[in-house]
Amino acid sequence: MENIQIEPIGFVRSPLKSLEDCPLQGYEGKVSAIIEVASAYAKGLQGISVGSELILLTWLHAGNRSVLTCYPRNNISAPHVGVFSTRSPDRPNPVGLHPVTVTAIVEGGNLQVYPLEVLDGTPVIDIKPVINAGS
Amino acid sequence: MENIQIEPIGFVRSPLKSLEDCPLQGYEGKVSAIIEVASAYAKGLQGISVGSELILLTWLHAGNRSVLTCYPRNNISAPHVGVFSTRSPDRPNPVGLHPVTVTAIVEGGNLQVYPLEVLDGTPVIDIKPVINAGS
Repeated sequence: MENIQIEPIGFVRSPLKSLEDCPLQGYEGKVSAIIEVASAYAKGLQGISVGSELILLTWLHAGNRSVLTCYPRNNISAPHVGVFSTRSPDRPNPVGLHPVTVTAIVEGGNLQVYPLEVLDGTPVIDIKPVINAGS
Repeated sequence: MENIQIEPIGFVRSPLKSLEDCPLQGYEGKVSAIIEVASAYAKGLQGISVGSELILLTWLHAGNRSVLTCYPRNNISAPHVGVFSTRSPDRPNPVGLHPVTVTAIVEGGNLQVYPLEVLDGTPVIDIKPVINAGS
């Protein structure tokens, strides 16, 4: 099979401008961000409103795609584990998975969401609703 | 930005051979499947064992990528909504998101998981642990 090609549907606008600004996990220092959806895809947002609970899929473009094992959660006293048993951004296909809530609809119909801790400029590849009872 | 290139880390082996075999949502008729991980990525599975709760990301290759709005859950009496407020496989980047549990480690170190309802041959793009307290 040929490689899969993904065109971002938009980009994250965030106050986090460098990796040093980012905590290790989403629950350490919550920040809001704006999801700027490209106009070609804006119709896909219909039905999303303030309070909507979403799962945002991003492309963690700073991730190292050649990494297969790592220390769990940067704990260098623990044994290495496979990256698929961790949430490390260093992994073959660094897709980020972020449960967020829409806190405002801003200019251009873009979404303000909370919490979201990824670098400013991170590509967004998909947006899904949270569905508690299934996949 | 250039398009993102994804190389599948493996493929799903499933008794579901055609779309007619597939229910609309994950909670209607559960089936098991095998995740065949390519040998180049097998080290990334270290630390995953029977009972591990994972989130599997797949590429729903039968999805129609030009669709931006749809009937919610194929209910043709409801108004159209944007695909980002649904789990439709018809969407610009048809990434599938599947919470599964590992039920066996099978030949070659591959994972038997449950439940998983995607077509046989569906590409797998990432595997992540479930983390209840964060992203």
